[in-house]
Amino acid sequence: MSIKLELQDLFATVRGDLAGVDERVRAAAQVDFPLLAAVVNDIVGAGGKRMRPALMLLIARAFEHDPDRIITAAAASELLHIAGLVHDDLIDHADTRRGAPTLNSLFDDGTVILIGDYLFAQAARTAAQTGNTRVMDVFGRILAEITDGQLREIIKAHNAEQSVEDYERRVYGKTASLFAGSAEIAAVLCEAPEEQIQAVRRYASDLGIAFQIVDDVLDIRETSEKLGKPAGSDLRQGTVTLPMLHFIGNGHDPAAVAQVRYAIAGDDVTEAQYESAIEQLRASNALRESLDEAIRYVEHAKAELAVLPSSEAREMLLALADFAVERHR
Amino acid sequence: MSIKLELQDLFATVRGDLAGVDERVRAAAQVDFPLLAAVVNDIVGAGGKRMRPALMLLIARAFEHDPDRIITAAAASELLHIAGLVHDDLIDHADTRRGAPTLNSLFDDGTVILIGDYLFAQAARTAAQTGNTRVMDVFGRILAEITDGQLREIIKAHNAEQSVEDYERRVYGKTASLFAGSAEIAAVLCEAPEEQIQAVRRYASDLGIAFQIVDDVLDIRETSEKLGKPAGSDLRQGTVTLPMLHFIGNGHDPAAVAQVRYAIAGDDVTEAQYESAIEQLRASNALRESLDEAIRYVEHAKAELAVLPSSEAREMLLALADFAVERHR
Repeated sequence: MSIKLELQDLFATVRGDLAGVDERVRAAAQVDFPLLAAVVNDIVGAGGKRMRPALMLLIARAFEHDPDRIITAAAASELLHIAGLVHDDLIDHADTRRGAPTLNSLFDDGTVILIGDYLFAQAARTAAQTGNTRVMDVFGRILAEITDGQLREIIKAHNAEQSVEDYERRVYGKTASLFAGSAEIAAVLCEAPEEQIQAVRRYASDLGIAFQIVDDVLDIRETSEKLGKPAGSDLRQGTVTLPMLHFIGNGHDPAAVAQVRYAIAGDDVTEAQYESAIEQLRASNALRESLDEAIRYVEHAKAELAVLPSSEAREMLLALADFAVERHR
Repeated sequence: MSIKLELQDLFATVRGDLAGVDERVRAAAQVDFPLLAAVVNDIVGAGGKRMRPALMLLIARAFEHDPDRIITAAAASELLHIAGLVHDDLIDHADTRRGAPTLNSLFDDGTVILIGDYLFAQAARTAAQTGNTRVMDVFGRILAEITDGQLREIIKAHNAEQSVEDYERRVYGKTASLFAGSAEIAAVLCEAPEEQIQAVRRYASDLGIAFQIVDDVLDIRETSEKLGKPAGSDLRQGTVTLPMLHFIGNGHDPAAVAQVRYAIAGDDVTEAQYESAIEQLRASNALRESLDEAIRYVEHAKAELAVLPSSEAREMLLALADFAVERHR
């Protein structure tokens, strides 16, 4: 997949450290049950983009800091991310992720809940190994914010009557919180000045929101084959994303808006009706408007980096921000 | 319920501190969703015995230490306990706990998973407020051990071919790990000598196992009314407990053993067959033998306290150990 290759190019300078993170993640995710061990190992190694660890390692480079403690913290961040995905796929009844079967497609709900909990525990233990109590506090806050965002997603599902602010708050919790917290942790471990810690935190938060907006656009625009999961899965689950809000809010043909609203509501919607609603969204300017919004977030993100000393790593953080939207091409 | 009153008598000296723990727990368990907030508040306040916080506060008294940081750590321990119960009740499909409806009897699975995750997060944040990295490490270890024990329970369910060691390992994870870790945390925060930290840890671990054995006996012996959940729920869920292992292993009437094995296997078992199997267990000496085992654990637990300086708090810890089995009367 081209996205992954491009990212690997972007992250070339931290490739060695990323391998270290991978090793830590795999070791922490070992489970003592032969049946489960292989599957969990697959999930953990399943070609995730390691976006958050790479972000943390680049930040550490920007402060010219020895990456050893950052590798530990980055492994904790990635474990937290994976634990969240395990619960998320169960909650969404997702059968595949990146084309591979999800844990919940293979095991009963109880086992999947507990594997997620186990990975949270290993994430917390790994974070504790940084020996830094602020890291632990941020870590706990991230987990609370993620679950808050996911609860909002459930509570606001199938409800077209919500604002862009509702969407942004959910997306902050679901995605940006882990980006922001991971960046904060990296900067804290580098003993950066507080002003710079807060700047990279805001950079990463905006980056996370931009990433999620682009994900939400791709979920509508791309084919199931390319996504590795059914196209339009947000709409099918009743998750109202930015393109849908733009479509509903921006004076499109009332019959088309009614179709999209009907699909969001999710009562007795046929496959043909879903496909038709997805076609309406694809054909509109709502995807473009959403990408423009993502670009605005990226510009804000990049502006935050002005307080960092000039370095190759800072250039790469700027490039990473651009990549967040450019990957849509 | 008499059990609770007796415990309250036992814990009279720490009652004020327990109120402080309660306040911390309730504050941390606040959720920002009106529909959920009231229910979560009920769950959090639902008359739990606050056994682990009381244990921690008594240990702190034994070291004559200011209880303020212990109150924070005790709130973290109780939040972890409650988070575990939320996921546990969902996994077990339990409708009631202590006579009150469970979260999973009121909300969809996704919401319940996320509320559990949220409470884990708040537990971690509260633990981080102790500002002690060893506390954080123990905390992560507890959560990993709990999920390990629960995974073992699922994997070993409906399987009568298991040893007492299998049972003990599960019970250590499921129950004793949080007792042991909470005691360790309390002693660490009191800056106790390592030998005494390890002694209270072993005391609490044995106490936890004794508690669980007695719970498993009561689950068979008591009426549904007294338990606040269906009698024999372990057997009905295929969870093999010590009384069942004693019954199967100790040369009882082969027809009766076959009945219990059939109920454990759980395929097409009628209500009458469950009741008959429960009656067989009740009428046997397996309950008595299990209580004797619990008493042995309590004696080991008490012996560990010999290294502590003599104090009123140590006497209460000894009494708490006795209470673990005496509450069966």
